[in-house]
Amino acid sequence: MTTEKPLPGLLTPEASLHRLADDLAARFAGVFARETIDRYVFESYTALGRTAKVTAHLPVLAGHFTTERLTALAQAKGALSSDVCEVLFVCVQNAGRSQMAAGLLQLHGAGRVHVRSAGSQPAPAIDDAVAQVMAEVGIDLAVEFPKPLTDDVVRAADVVVTMGCGDACPVYPGKRYLDWQVRDPAGLSVGEVRAIRDDIDTRVRALLAELQPTPA
Amino acid sequence: MTTEKPLPGLLTPEASLHRLADDLAARFAGVFARETIDRYVFESYTALGRTAKVTAHLPVLAGHFTTERLTALAQAKGALSSDVCEVLFVCVQNAGRSQMAAGLLQLHGAGRVHVRSAGSQPAPAIDDAVAQVMAEVGIDLAVEFPKPLTDDVVRAADVVVTMGCGDACPVYPGKRYLDWQVRDPAGLSVGEVRAIRDDIDTRVRALLAELQPTPA
Repeated sequence: MTTEKPLPGLLTPEASLHRLADDLAARFAGVFARETIDRYVFESYTALGRTAKVTAHLPVLAGHFTTERLTALAQAKGALSSDVCEVLFVCVQNAGRSQMAAGLLQLHGAGRVHVRSAGSQPAPAIDDAVAQVMAEVGIDLAVEFPKPLTDDVVRAADVVVTMGCGDACPVYPGKRYLDWQVRDPAGLSVGEVRAIRDDIDTRVRALLAELQPTPA
Repeated sequence: MTTEKPLPGLLTPEASLHRLADDLAARFAGVFARETIDRYVFESYTALGRTAKVTAHLPVLAGHFTTERLTALAQAKGALSSDVCEVLFVCVQNAGRSQMAAGLLQLHGAGRVHVRSAGSQPAPAIDDAVAQVMAEVGIDLAVEFPKPLTDDVVRAADVVVTMGCGDACPVYPGKRYLDWQVRDPAGLSVGEVRAIRDDIDTRVRALLAELQPTPA
């Protein structure tokens, strides 16, 4: 067993994750049991840790991811009201197409819609060329990160737009499902990614016009 | 929006997943809240659906996966006693190395250890050559399937063996972590995969000898 060696990994930041769970338990008091919140925190951390590139920021990202998932679940069970249309974009890596669509709909929707995104097989990080062409139109993806698709965000959605991820997304009645045939930006030049951004922008504007959202 | 079309996917089998949750709620009565069980069922289903190749069997696989996860969590919180050593094997795809190690340790351990496996980025299905060389030594992987690494199975483990998945696995104090440098069988010939099986077999036998498990 000479090739065996202890794993050099850092200890899981249990203390900071328990503090996060404390905060979320206060925020969602009366909505979720503490057990649910604890499981969401630690499973969200592990889910991101499977694929994330930079593990130093993992507790912070896990905080954002868990909060978003619990918010979605609270909406789905009617404990949190949402007076705007909820749109979920799903692609394979949540590093390009779904991030661009989410950023553009958030920009054009200006508070009239709420947007989430996810991937069936999340990439380690957002695509550099994608971040660059989004910055060109004033959208900063620096705080965004690839996230795996979860049941909770599907349940909270009124509209689900899939791009290239096949049948990976749960299909529930009463939601509108759209499948957009958009070129995958992975490995393409900035010029090509810019064209994809503009293609998505056209689709996003048309979708927004159709949604006729209830004013907030 | 002419490229838009409704998604042809089947409806999520909600009724069968709710029945599964009913069964698990009875099985884990007094251990977990119903909310926890419901979330485990639907999130496990969605997690497998992200990457599974054959979606027809997904509710059945989700049943196995959810049951194993809840069992692990019950062990971790001391609600279920385990009088044997719990070993978790983790690789990238949970389609080759970790499946071979789990099958071989289960075979040689003969009830003296309990074995689980998982992957940081699960493949759509178990590798064909891997299934073939395991069948040669009397281990049937037909009922196994690639599963994403979750926090619950790490918590339940006494020993965690990682193979090629970097820092993807949460590290908790009080567990033994080993990292095995084993060649990835993906895309290799049956003869090469057979050699990997034998390499893993040697390591598994040595590990078993070290574990000195408490007799059941």
